[in-house]
Amino acid sequence: MNRQQLIEQIKTKKSFLCVGLDTDLKKIPQHLLDDEDPIFTFNKAVIDATAPYCVAYKPNLAFYEAFGIKGMVAFEKTVDYLKAHCPDHFVIADAKRGDIGNTSAMYARTFFGEYDIDALTVAPYMGEDSVSPFLTYDGKWVVLLALTSNKGSHDFQLTADAGGERLFEKVLRVSRQWGDADNMMYVVGATQGKMFSDIRRIVPDHFLLVPGVGAQGGSLHEVCRYGMTDDCGLLVNSSRGIIYASQGDDFAEAAAKAAHELQQEMAAELAAR
Amino acid sequence: MNRQQLIEQIKTKKSFLCVGLDTDLKKIPQHLLDDEDPIFTFNKAVIDATAPYCVAYKPNLAFYEAFGIKGMVAFEKTVDYLKAHCPDHFVIADAKRGDIGNTSAMYARTFFGEYDIDALTVAPYMGEDSVSPFLTYDGKWVVLLALTSNKGSHDFQLTADAGGERLFEKVLRVSRQWGDADNMMYVVGATQGKMFSDIRRIVPDHFLLVPGVGAQGGSLHEVCRYGMTDDCGLLVNSSRGIIYASQGDDFAEAAAKAAHELQQEMAAELAAR
Repeated sequence: MNRQQLIEQIKTKKSFLCVGLDTDLKKIPQHLLDDEDPIFTFNKAVIDATAPYCVAYKPNLAFYEAFGIKGMVAFEKTVDYLKAHCPDHFVIADAKRGDIGNTSAMYARTFFGEYDIDALTVAPYMGEDSVSPFLTYDGKWVVLLALTSNKGSHDFQLTADAGGERLFEKVLRVSRQWGDADNMMYVVGATQGKMFSDIRRIVPDHFLLVPGVGAQGGSLHEVCRYGMTDDCGLLVNSSRGIIYASQGDDFAEAAAKAAHELQQEMAAELAAR
Repeated sequence: MNRQQLIEQIKTKKSFLCVGLDTDLKKIPQHLLDDEDPIFTFNKAVIDATAPYCVAYKPNLAFYEAFGIKGMVAFEKTVDYLKAHCPDHFVIADAKRGDIGNTSAMYARTFFGEYDIDALTVAPYMGEDSVSPFLTYDGKWVVLLALTSNKGSHDFQLTADAGGERLFEKVLRVSRQWGDADNMMYVVGATQGKMFSDIRRIVPDHFLLVPGVGAQGGSLHEVCRYGMTDDCGLLVNSSRGIIYASQGDDFAEAAAKAAHELQQEMAAELAAR
């Protein structure tokens, strides 16, 4: 999916919600465990329920890998289901990969070639040749970690160099040269508040993928105030707040309700701009 | 495997060689492609041939994931084979993972809980809570990226802060507090030459996992000169130089020969200390 198509989807749906499919067998309704493939059954129900309110889905690979081959089968089935039933939704594999060139090229082949996913999260630590192999696929996106939502983001990402430039700012400034706003996005945690202003000074046009609203405590309004652009420029992710809104039989309706509430907040933010 | 056991293996075998199992269907002898599971068949032959000369194996997850479910089955079979037939070899999953706490905990469960692998490579960008979940498994190791072997390592890892401390040095200094020399190692590329002296000032006792000898151009002698400790303190990896030493029917003998040559160089370095 290209940038213009994504922007159109956001306008049409009045939503920039990304639903994180961090599906954990320990947290899904226990009656699903009798199912042949409980992870996929859960995902399918959540997708069917939330699709009208979101523009993107983000399965987190860790949750699938944790269940070995069965987990990866569930991941593939989920991706296939999204491609067949939600062709207008943007699909992000949250895998935070990044390795030397020939290895990153293998990961790119997996996620873009085999799975045909729209975007992949990538870690910047190893520099340009660890990222550029992902930028050679037409219509595919790198979502590079910049300023993450967790406490440990302060350990290295905020370290300033002699000129006062912080590491996340250097990552933004330097990596901006590797691709452009049509094939790169950045991860910026919702917990980072006013930092969005600093980020917009460096990447005024790039989309930002924003985790941390909900369970991690970030404010949607703050994110929009400092991070929204004329093209929206935001994909705000919620995982646990939606998919585990209820752990009972009504999990899908509860997920729909939680997604709808976020979508309505988003519609208001878009209208207010 | 604990630190003392690893040191004993190095002394017994006069080797600190790690063989990287970066198995690519495009590069293995083409007659193996008729096999039911060519990746595992190749790995098994390479393992059998090289086991006397090395103390560790490092399958790189990217190469297995690239072949989807079949690739992951081959990975699991390889790990099971190593555990059954090479119980004295240290097994490192080269996956370069790292995510927010609850996600890293899932990865830890996969690699240490499910696969029972000795060590996992982890990326430091997201800080302490992205790494610490991997340090809660007894006898298991985090191998944290510090100064990598690729060209892009210069993009961010060498950035100095106002006090002159470079990012890789800060990663070493700060992360030293998260674990100790019994459960943490660091990735330092063989291409980094004299930087090993700077690294040893910060982590005098930790083991270093050193890629980049061979195909990437690093010198074993330089690595040993500046990086070796009284306990050896090094695991030097070679992947392509060993497993693709020949692409003919004699690939296993050629791998054994390449591994044996490196082991002899290593024995000389150990004796010279």
